[in-house]
Amino acid sequence: MRHFISVDQFSEGEIWNLLHRAEQFSMGRVPGFSKPLYAANLFFEPSTRTKMSFTMAQKRLGMEVLDFHTDTSSTKKGETLYDTSRTLQAIGANLLVIRHPSDVWADELQDKLSIPVINAGAGKAEHPSQCMLDLMTIYQEFSGFSGLKIVVAGDIRHSRVAHSNARALKSLGAEVYLCAPPGFQDESLDFPYISMDEAVKVSDVLMLLRIQHERHHGVAGPSVDYLTEYGLTKQREKKMKQHSIILHPAPVNRGVEIDSDLVECSRSRIFKQMENGVYMRMAIMSKILEEWGIMGENIIEKYKPALAGR
Amino acid sequence: MRHFISVDQFSEGEIWNLLHRAEQFSMGRVPGFSKPLYAANLFFEPSTRTKMSFTMAQKRLGMEVLDFHTDTSSTKKGETLYDTSRTLQAIGANLLVIRHPSDVWADELQDKLSIPVINAGAGKAEHPSQCMLDLMTIYQEFSGFSGLKIVVAGDIRHSRVAHSNARALKSLGAEVYLCAPPGFQDESLDFPYISMDEAVKVSDVLMLLRIQHERHHGVAGPSVDYLTEYGLTKQREKKMKQHSIILHPAPVNRGVEIDSDLVECSRSRIFKQMENGVYMRMAIMSKILEEWGIMGENIIEKYKPALAGR
Amino acid sequence: MRHFISVDQFSEGEIWNLLHRAEQFSMGRVPGFSKPLYAANLFFEPSTRTKMSFTMAQKRLGMEVLDFHTDTSSTKKGETLYDTSRTLQAIGANLLVIRHPSDVWADELQDKLSIPVINAGAGKAEHPSQCMLDLMTIYQEFSGFSGLKIVVAGDIRHSRVAHSNARALKSLGAEVYLCAPPGFQDESLDFPYISMDEAVKVSDVLMLLRIQHERHHGVAGPSVDYLTEYGLTKQREKKMKQHSIILHPAPVNRGVEIDSDLVECSRSRIFKQMENGVYMRMAIMSKILEEWGIMGENIIEKYKPALAGR
Repeated sequence: MRHFISVDQFSEGEIWNLLHRAEQFSMGRVPGFSKPLYAANLFFEPSTRTKMSFTMAQKRLGMEVLDFHTDTSSTKKGETLYDTSRTLQAIGANLLVIRHPSDVWADELQDKLSIPVINAGAGKAEHPSQCMLDLMTIYQEFSGFSGLKIVVAGDIRHSRVAHSNARALKSLGAEVYLCAPPGFQDESLDFPYISMDEAVKVSDVLMLLRIQHERHHGVAGPSVDYLTEYGLTKQREKKMKQHSIILHPAPVNRGVEIDSDLVECSRSRIFKQMENGVYMRMAIMSKILEEWGIMGENIIEKYKPALAGR
Repeated sequence: MRHFISVDQFSEGEIWNLLHRAEQFSMGRVPGFSKPLYAANLFFEPSTRTKMSFTMAQKRLGMEVLDFHTDTSSTKKGETLYDTSRTLQAIGANLLVIRHPSDVWADELQDKLSIPVINAGAGKAEHPSQCMLDLMTIYQEFSGFSGLKIVVAGDIRHSRVAHSNARALKSLGAEVYLCAPPGFQDESLDFPYISMDEAVKVSDVLMLLRIQHERHHGVAGPSVDYLTEYGLTKQREKKMKQHSIILHPAPVNRGVEIDSDLVECSRSRIFKQMENGVYMRMAIMSKILEEWGIMGENIIEKYKPALAGR
Repeated sequence: MRHFISVDQFSEGEIWNLLHRAEQFSMGRVPGFSKPLYAANLFFEPSTRTKMSFTMAQKRLGMEVLDFHTDTSSTKKGETLYDTSRTLQAIGANLLVIRHPSDVWADELQDKLSIPVINAGAGKAEHPSQCMLDLMTIYQEFSGFSGLKIVVAGDIRHSRVAHSNARALKSLGAEVYLCAPPGFQDESLDFPYISMDEAVKVSDVLMLLRIQHERHHGVAGPSVDYLTEYGLTKQREKKMKQHSIILHPAPVNRGVEIDSDLVECSRSRIFKQMENGVYMRMAIMSKILEEWGIMGENIIEKYKPALAGR
C-alpha cells in the first residue's frame, strides 16, 4: 500500500490489518515516534467530519498539521493539484491528505510524488477511509462479516461510499442488497434491489446514504416524499430485527433519509462511526508511514504481537 | 457551572473565582495536565480578538486546537449546529467554543452535549467572556467594584456586552450609568441615562461600546456627527478624573466612538483588555474542565490555596 | 535588524549571516528554546508556498502558530492593519509575519509595534524572504556570487522579487542582466536588457519570473506567444551552459514562462528553492528573535562558532 487511494486496491489481509490496528488505537494505544512528522491536509471541497477527523487522528499520532486553505491559496492563481502537492512535499510534508472534486485526481499524483497520499474523497468515485470506518463499525458489532445481511439504501448513484462499501462487504462474505428510488439506482452495481419495507425486515446492517443535493447539478430529485417512500420512518424502524444497526455517513438530512428522532436511537451507530473514523484514520496513516519507513521501527514492533495472534 | 453561556448564570462567588484564577494566569501560573486535551473553536461570525484570544488561551493551557472553518464545512450542506457540535464531540473534542449569530443557540446544546460549551458570542444577546475580561480590567485597576461609577456609553441597544456588563457590575456594587443617542438606547435596562459631557466628569470607568454597523440591517444610525455629539473627543477626555480609565471591546471605529489619538492614551486600557482576555479565557476553560473532572486533580489543588486566602 | 522588511536595509554582513544560518538549519540544526514562542501569520493575499513555508519554519523552530484568517476576521468590520497587528501583540504574539497588497504597509508598523514584523510580501514592492531564498539557492550551487552572470527574465515591472534580487546580487558581486518584453520592462532598474536567446547562452543563473496576471488590472499582457518569444522553450534550454541553473519563484504558469517539461529538468532548482525557503525563514525568524532578546542565549551561542569561522 504505497498510497491510500481506493478500497478496491486493498487485499483482504490489508483490510483486516487496518481493522485490527484501528481497534488497537480505540483501546488507547499510542505510537512512539523517532522524529517529528508533518501532515498536510488539502481539502478542495467542504468537509467537517472528514477534515476534523483526519486532523484529530494526526494530532493523536503526534504529527504536526499543516492546514492548507484552498480558498486563500495559489490554486486561486491557477496552480495545478500536482504543483501544489509537489510544493508541500518540497516544504517538508511527510504525508498528504487530499479531497478534490475530480473523480480521478489521484491518478497523476500516485507515481510522481515521493511521499504518501491519502484519499479523503475523490469526486463521487471514492471515499475509502469512510468505507473502512464503516467496516470497522460493523466489525465492532458483529465480530465479522460472514453471512451478514447488509442493505445499502438511498442515493446510490451519487454516493462515493456505496460502490466501495458494497464491493468490500461482498468480498468479506456479507450478503449485500441495495435499496433506492429509480433515479438513484446504479446499474453498474451487480446486487439485488429491494424495497425499504423489505430492507428493514431483512437487514442486520442498514446503511443509509446521504442525498447528495450538491452533486445533482440540476438533476431533479425524486418527486415524492422521500422519507415516507424510501427513508427510515419510525414505523419502519420498529420492524427491524432486535440486534440490527443503522449506519449513515453524515451529514444527515434529518427528516429525509431518516426521521430526526432516530438519529440517536439505540440502534443508531451514526456518531459511533465518527468516533471510529479517528481510530481508522490513525490506522491508515500509521500503516502507510510504516510501509514507507518514515515512522521508524518501534511502532511496527508494537503492532506485530497483536496482529500475530489473529 | 456546567457550561459557560451567560454571565447572569454565575454566582458572585463564581465571578470572584474566575477573577482570581485569571490573575494567577496573568502572573505566569501554568496548569499541569494529566492527558492531552482538545478544544474545537466554531466561529460562525467574523472574529479577530475573540477567536485568536481563545486560541492563545488554549495553547497556553497546553490544549490542542481544532480550528473549524465554517465557510468550508458541512454547515454549507445544511447541517445543524447541534449535529456539527455532536460530531466534534464524537471525534474527541473535550470542549467547544462557539460564536453564532443566533441569540439563543446555546439553549438546545446545553442539555444534549456531554462536553462543556463556552459561549464566545450569541447574536446580540451575550458575550460573557468579554464581560468577564472587562471586570478583570476594572478589578486590576481599582481592586474592587464597590462604589465605582461606571458609564456604559454608545450603541447599547445592539451591544451584546452592555447588558451583561451593566447587570454584573451592579451586582458587584458599582453605580452604573448609561449614555447613548435616542436610537441606541434600550428601555429594558433599568439604569439612568446621562449625557457624554456628564459621563466624562463622573465616571471612574468609561466603557465605550462599538457601533455595530453589521447588526443594524437597514436601521439608519444617528444622523449626527457621532464623535462630536456622543463620542470621546480630546476635549472631553481632558475633563475626566485623574484616575479614571477608558475601556472599549474593540474593534474600535477610530474617529467615531473615540478620537483616534486617544486609543492608546495613558488612561486607555483597550489593549490591556485584550491581554487580559487571554488570561480570563484560560481561567474560564480551566475552571470548566475542572468541574467536569476532565483536567485531573492537580490544577484544582494548585488553585485551592490561592483562593482559600481570599 | 529590528524588523525584516526590505532586502535593501541589510548590510552585506547580515546577508551572509542569514545564508550561513540557513545552511545550518538545512543540515539539521535545531534551536533550543527557553520558553514557548508564538508566531502570528497575517496573509491578506492568497499564498501557498510562502504561508506554508513560514508555518513549517515556525513549527521546526518549535514555535506555536496562530493562523489568522483574513476572510473571517475583524478586518471585515473595517479594522486597520495597525489595530489588527497591535491586537495580536496584546494577545501575546512574539512575532508577526504579514503579507498585504499595499506596497508600504510596513512603514507605519515598524515604529509602533514592540514585537518584530516579518515582511512576507508587500504589494508589488518587496518580498525579501523570497529574495533571500533565491540567494541561498545560488550560493548552494556556486559557493559565492562574484562574477556570476545572472539573468532576471520576465514580468520585471510587476515583480516584487526582481528589484530586490537585482540590487542584492549586484552588491554581492554578480553581473546582472534583465530580459523582458517592452511592456514588462522597468526603467527604474539600471541593468542592461538582453534577449532570451542571449540570456540562455550567457547566464549561469536564469531567474524566470512569474507573469503576475492578478496584478495587471486591465493592462493587457503582450499580444505575442509568450513562451516562444520570451519564455524558456526546450530548444533554448539546450543552449544553456552545462553548469547553469534555472530558478522560478512559483507558482509556475506552465507553458508560459517555461515549457512544462522543464519544470523538473535536471538544471531546474524550482522545488529546491521551496525547500530552501523553509531553512531561510527559520534563519530570518531566529535571527530576529535573537536580536530582540526573545529567544534566550543558547541559540546565539550555538551559532557563534559556526559564524566565527567565516
